[in-house]
Amino acid sequence: MAIHFQHLVVIGVGLIGGSLAMALRDRGIVERIVGVGRGLKNLERAKERGIIDSFSRDLKEGSQGADLVVVATPVCTIPAVIKQIAPILRAGTIIIDVGSVKQIILEQVEPSLPAGLHFVGGHPLAGAEKSGAEAASAQLFQGGKCVLTPSPNTDPQALEKVTSIWRESGMEVILMDAQRHDRIMGAISHLSHIVATCLVQTMKGLPDPAEELLSYASGGFNDTTRVASSRPEIWRDIYLWNREAVLEAISQFELSLRRLKGFIEEEDEAGLLKELEGAKKLRNQLKRF
Amino acid sequence: MAIHFQHLVVIGVGLIGGSLAMALRDRGIVERIVGVGRGLKNLERAKERGIIDSFSRDLKEGSQGADLVVVATPVCTIPAVIKQIAPILRAGTIIIDVGSVKQIILEQVEPSLPAGLHFVGGHPLAGAEKSGAEAASAQLFQGGKCVLTPSPNTDPQALEKVTSIWRESGMEVILMDAQRHDRIMGAISHLSHIVATCLVQTMKGLPDPAEELLSYASGGFNDTTRVASSRPEIWRDIYLWNREAVLEAISQFELSLRRLKGFIEEEDEAGLLKELEGAKKLRNQLKRF
Repeated sequence: MAIHFQHLVVIGVGLIGGSLAMALRDRGIVERIVGVGRGLKNLERAKERGIIDSFSRDLKEGSQGADLVVVATPVCTIPAVIKQIAPILRAGTIIIDVGSVKQIILEQVEPSLPAGLHFVGGHPLAGAEKSGAEAASAQLFQGGKCVLTPSPNTDPQALEKVTSIWRESGMEVILMDAQRHDRIMGAISHLSHIVATCLVQTMKGLPDPAEELLSYASGGFNDTTRVASSRPEIWRDIYLWNREAVLEAISQFELSLRRLKGFIEEEDEAGLLKELEGAKKLRNQLKRF
Repeated sequence: MAIHFQHLVVIGVGLIGGSLAMALRDRGIVERIVGVGRGLKNLERAKERGIIDSFSRDLKEGSQGADLVVVATPVCTIPAVIKQIAPILRAGTIIIDVGSVKQIILEQVEPSLPAGLHFVGGHPLAGAEKSGAEAASAQLFQGGKCVLTPSPNTDPQALEKVTSIWRESGMEVILMDAQRHDRIMGAISHLSHIVATCLVQTMKGLPDPAEELLSYASGGFNDTTRVASSRPEIWRDIYLWNREAVLEAISQFELSLRRLKGFIEEEDEAGLLKELEGAKKLRNQLKRF
């Protein structure tokens, strides 16, 4: 499907928002790009890099005239941002988001959306080690997956256009129920962060001082805890906004841990080996890493 | 301390054993190096690379004439290897190991060691993503730490020489009680592997198929579970040989997890944020990674 937009507004010109703007400009899909954000320095850098043509630090002013709005702000601000800009957007405008939790956003956005505006929630699974417009790249999404979570109310034409947007940016698009998305992410993404956080925190409760323990860290601890260095506010919101799925994943993890602990307690060599072999086998299916 | 050995025998010419041989040869500390192992291909490769001068697949034959023996076999084989070679070693020979668990090795080796042989247990904290003689490098130990775990029975001169061996190979040497070493490693190293293993295994117990969950994995899951791809037999032995410390670390981790879970259950934003900030702060002290 050939798509074209006259006026893209990117709210939150960070790694994801900035990269999407760059990818869409590269593909000749958008004419004019306006960035909206709080941090002046980041917006100035985005303009310098040619990611955006102009910018505004005022949400309503900056969003005027858009036919496509990308909301790439921290997950728990997304519904409020959309509520604020909705009254000034014209009919036919498409709004997309990139939040890593989807059901609660859908619940909060859909009922209050004025007729004629089209919201299509999505979650591009793309790396996030760096942040800000400085780190944005037109290639960020190449070869990745983007989950879109339409509801029964989603406009089919808007969904088709948004699917094209993400495909053109380089991603495989997968359509999924928002609740299912959240359950999957709770398991494969959010639980990793929880476990990494707890692994770091565990060092504080042991007989030896945490700083000393850390001085003996090597590859294993470093890899396993890397995500615990991510932004706390973001993850607090993700946990609370995906509470049910996250709690279910934690409970299942507790069972796994109790089983492994049991094998060690009982010195069950065969059980332990089988468990470790099973984990290795499944882990090795991640070919790319 | 200037040290020199005429005849180094390396039992297990893998990443660690091979790298130590290379480092010691580089520093002009050893004359002749004999490799002992099971795998013919690995020994041949080690000889091709100049890591060893000759090799034997027979433990006793290969160890004859040594004045320094490096035992770099899997941790649970170390005491048996030392017991087997001890009768044919001449008085004054120094035996070192590189096992990642120390107390149980000490307990099993010391009582049966013939008078005149000197054992100094050690654990070089060095990366292990690759394995085999192919991956060995004289630079592997540069800038790393090596923990030596002498006992009250350890010969002071032998300890001094072994300290020099590891220093010459590029490591900072730290002397520590074997039990303390095992407690620290249980926390900072072995627990990471346990948690990574359980995180992978958790994917099998959730409503969605594990293979499907893994197809949505990105950086977080990949980093956090990387060590779960290590060799199952090695880790089974480490867990069982460091059982007490590992169980204590798991129990403390369970407390951390229960605390974090509680914050999520109770939707305690402040508690959650404080926990995440605490983990991030401590994790960020790992400057090198």
